[in-house]
Amino acid sequence: MIDSLVDAGMNDLISDLQTLIRQPSVSAKKVGLTECANLVAEIMQKAGISSEVLHLDNNGIDKSVPPIVYGEVRSKSNPNKTLLFYNHYDVQPEEPIELWENEPFSGIVKDNQVFGRGSADDKGELITRIKAVQYLLKETGDVPCNIKFIVEGEEEIGSLHVEQYLKKYEQKLASDGVIWEFGYVDAKDRPIISLGMKGLLYVELIATGPSRDAHSMFAVLIENPAWRLVSALKTMRDQKTGKITIKDWYKEVKPFTKEELEIISREPFDEREFKNEYGLKRLVAGAKGKNAKKALVGMPTCNIAGFDSGYIGEGAKTVLPAKARVKIDFRLVPGMVPEKQLARLKKHLKQHGFSDVEVNFIHGEAAVRTSISEPFVKKVEEAAREVFGSSILSVSSAGTGPMYSFVKVLKAPCISVGSTYMFARIHSPNEFARVDLLNKCTKCIGRIIEKFAA
Amino acid sequence: MIDSLVDAGMNDLISDLQTLIRQPSVSAKKVGLTECANLVAEIMQKAGISSEVLHLDNNGIDKSVPPIVYGEVRSKSNPNKTLLFYNHYDVQPEEPIELWENEPFSGIVKDNQVFGRGSADDKGELITRIKAVQYLLKETGDVPCNIKFIVEGEEEIGSLHVEQYLKKYEQKLASDGVIWEFGYVDAKDRPIISLGMKGLLYVELIATGPSRDAHSMFAVLIENPAWRLVSALKTMRDQKTGKITIKDWYKEVKPFTKEELEIISREPFDEREFKNEYGLKRLVAGAKGKNAKKALVGMPTCNIAGFDSGYIGEGAKTVLPAKARVKIDFRLVPGMVPEKQLARLKKHLKQHGFSDVEVNFIHGEAAVRTSISEPFVKKVEEAAREVFGSSILSVSSAGTGPMYSFVKVLKAPCISVGSTYMFARIHSPNEFARVDLLNKCTKCIGRIIEKFAA
Repeated sequence: MIDSLVDAGMNDLISDLQTLIRQPSVSAKKVGLTECANLVAEIMQKAGISSEVLHLDNNGIDKSVPPIVYGEVRSKSNPNKTLLFYNHYDVQPEEPIELWENEPFSGIVKDNQVFGRGSADDKGELITRIKAVQYLLKETGDVPCNIKFIVEGEEEIGSLHVEQYLKKYEQKLASDGVIWEFGYVDAKDRPIISLGMKGLLYVELIATGPSRDAHSMFAVLIENPAWRLVSALKTMRDQKTGKITIKDWYKEVKPFTKEELEIISREPFDEREFKNEYGLKRLVAGAKGKNAKKALVGMPTCNIAGFDSGYIGEGAKTVLPAKARVKIDFRLVPGMVPEKQLARLKKHLKQHGFSDVEVNFIHGEAAVRTSISEPFVKKVEEAAREVFGSSILSVSSAGTGPMYSFVKVLKAPCISVGSTYMFARIHSPNEFARVDLLNKCTKCIGRIIEKFAA
Repeated sequence: MIDSLVDAGMNDLISDLQTLIRQPSVSAKKVGLTECANLVAEIMQKAGISSEVLHLDNNGIDKSVPPIVYGEVRSKSNPNKTLLFYNHYDVQPEEPIELWENEPFSGIVKDNQVFGRGSADDKGELITRIKAVQYLLKETGDVPCNIKFIVEGEEEIGSLHVEQYLKKYEQKLASDGVIWEFGYVDAKDRPIISLGMKGLLYVELIATGPSRDAHSMFAVLIENPAWRLVSALKTMRDQKTGKITIKDWYKEVKPFTKEELEIISREPFDEREFKNEYGLKRLVAGAKGKNAKKALVGMPTCNIAGFDSGYIGEGAKTVLPAKARVKIDFRLVPGMVPEKQLARLKKHLKQHGFSDVEVNFIHGEAAVRTSISEPFVKKVEEAAREVFGSSILSVSSAGTGPMYSFVKVLKAPCISVGSTYMFARIHSPNEFARVDLLNKCTKCIGRIIEKFAA
């Protein structure tokens, strides 16, 4: 048990986390990615994990794809079993900057919180994995099974090349189980052990109006592209129910199994707390209790992530914009194929008279769920309960990641568990990691490795 | 006739215009306004026009309202008749900056064009008025009637205080006729003499979602404010016809008079040219010929001038935005009262279930039309034909200005005539003034003063 080493090493853990936060690594803007990958490799080396920065091409010449960091510790005592940690070193854009109380990449510590973009998602999680391995090595001079790391740099833009990396380095990355890059901890400090992820289809719709911005007095004659988009969008989703009104959108969606419904029933969901956290009076379609939980696990969505047209500065400008652009993320559930859904969206727009609206595919990922009967699940649950006192099993996260690719290529079960407080403001201003949860999670990861190896 | 003086002074005219363009004066951002007012006053003085920078309060202490520039030349020979020039020294915001071929405030001259924000709207027009007066003074040592100028600094944000200025300085500004701040020249170099302006109601609609940006995985539970706005907007306008679907919106709109319809018939409108200029395949509701002309003169509009929500940078961000904001400008026609229309909009939103959507009033102006039988009209037509060879009479511009306030307070007929090429990209990137039209307009203004005084 590495618990006392973890407690003694917390300053060290936070300092390494700050080093990573202070290196901005925004994949959407291609900022600081190689620099951050090199930092991760250094921190691994320092922890006794041999690391390499790997490129998708053979010579690292093609710099357009961010590298992955590969880490490895071979077990002397048990070289036939391997646990892989999947994490990412890239972060979401820091905007809107004006809403941050401190500089977005400060890494500032206040009481129990470390603030900064990436503090929780995913640099905090990565550090807990690295430190657990470091202390296991320190304690026994060995690890109880082989340990591998894959740390990618495109998770926040849809893990565009992770499948190619997995295929290219398939033998190097071969493993018997995968601990996913994150895991939420609920408001009662119970880690949520999640067995699946939703998929994602991210698109941009662009409507084009006049060849350049025009004076809005010509709105009597020139069709406004923002109006085009409003009309097109209105055909895609029912406001009252939140249901997507594109033909056959739900065709491949399977109902929950009895086993899944049981787990969902047991899962806690504090509706009042959730509403408080986001200042909401009601939830979409008036969802409550089990329905809200079912929605989080298994409901597809159509979310407007951004809408941009015309003059958005202060005051008034009487302009008829040349373009209008909307960014949409559709969450998908198992059975839905991103490419197929994209084709349905395109067909829908055409059939509703919006063939002039351009659809740009940004990325797609399929959903996946690891089976509840997988023995690895029980081991993670035990480890979590030993450290946190209790744990919650979840059929699937409401979020998205490239889990489908891991299952497909490595054929290993993937389980999500970690240190991220559920209201840690990931993807939002003032993101933070909780120090107490970083501590517990590091201990928990140590136990998971031991149990997995046993 | 000042024609030869105008020809000889063109370098001077352009140099003064460049001086004004190079002083940014964006009223929407409150940038450079006092500086620009002072420059205008200096240029007037240099031209022999006595000028003052006037504030709305007595001592100029309240700097929140931009000053006006008052200019005056008393006629020795004919002190009982006064012509007033109304212009503005403020300009539209320069965004989107990346689409400018030169710096937005460059004043760069290429062949027949002077480029820069404000080159045409309205600094170019202002210069033609100043120069005409300067050359009349130079030629005869007098002006044929009293000349007055009012140059305001809030035209582009709806002339928020011009009516207060008119009332405060009513005696100083008293006049028998007003030449409006601009006038278009069509593609065949015919000046458009316009007798009216549309009104405007400018509002912001704001929908509020979660108390802060949330991860979009929660779109299953949290209503997205951009979706709220899309739904609210969709109830306000019919996409096919462009008609506003707010109850009683058109209630006070009067049909065209027989006289107005005759003028509209005679007015040229080159549909093909218009479509080419803006790269359009068709016009709103398939408008053609006389219908298109009637729309420009007398159709109310509901235009989305800006839509802003969530992440609008490059790449993907999976965010559920906290706010969505849309800027809308409604053009109004005679009979419509901005405050009344605003109340109808608010009622509409409430009745359609959108009482959560906030309506911010930005500004309102009523529409007005000067009578075609007004003798001043004929004089302006004659002057324009002498210089340009021909002219076009128009019942009303499709644009908006505070003409209603001038007619109400000064009780003087207002006529719009000027130098702005109809495709001069006003309010858009790469705005320009045509040197040949600045030249002709200056000559035309000289003749208008002479005929008006006669």
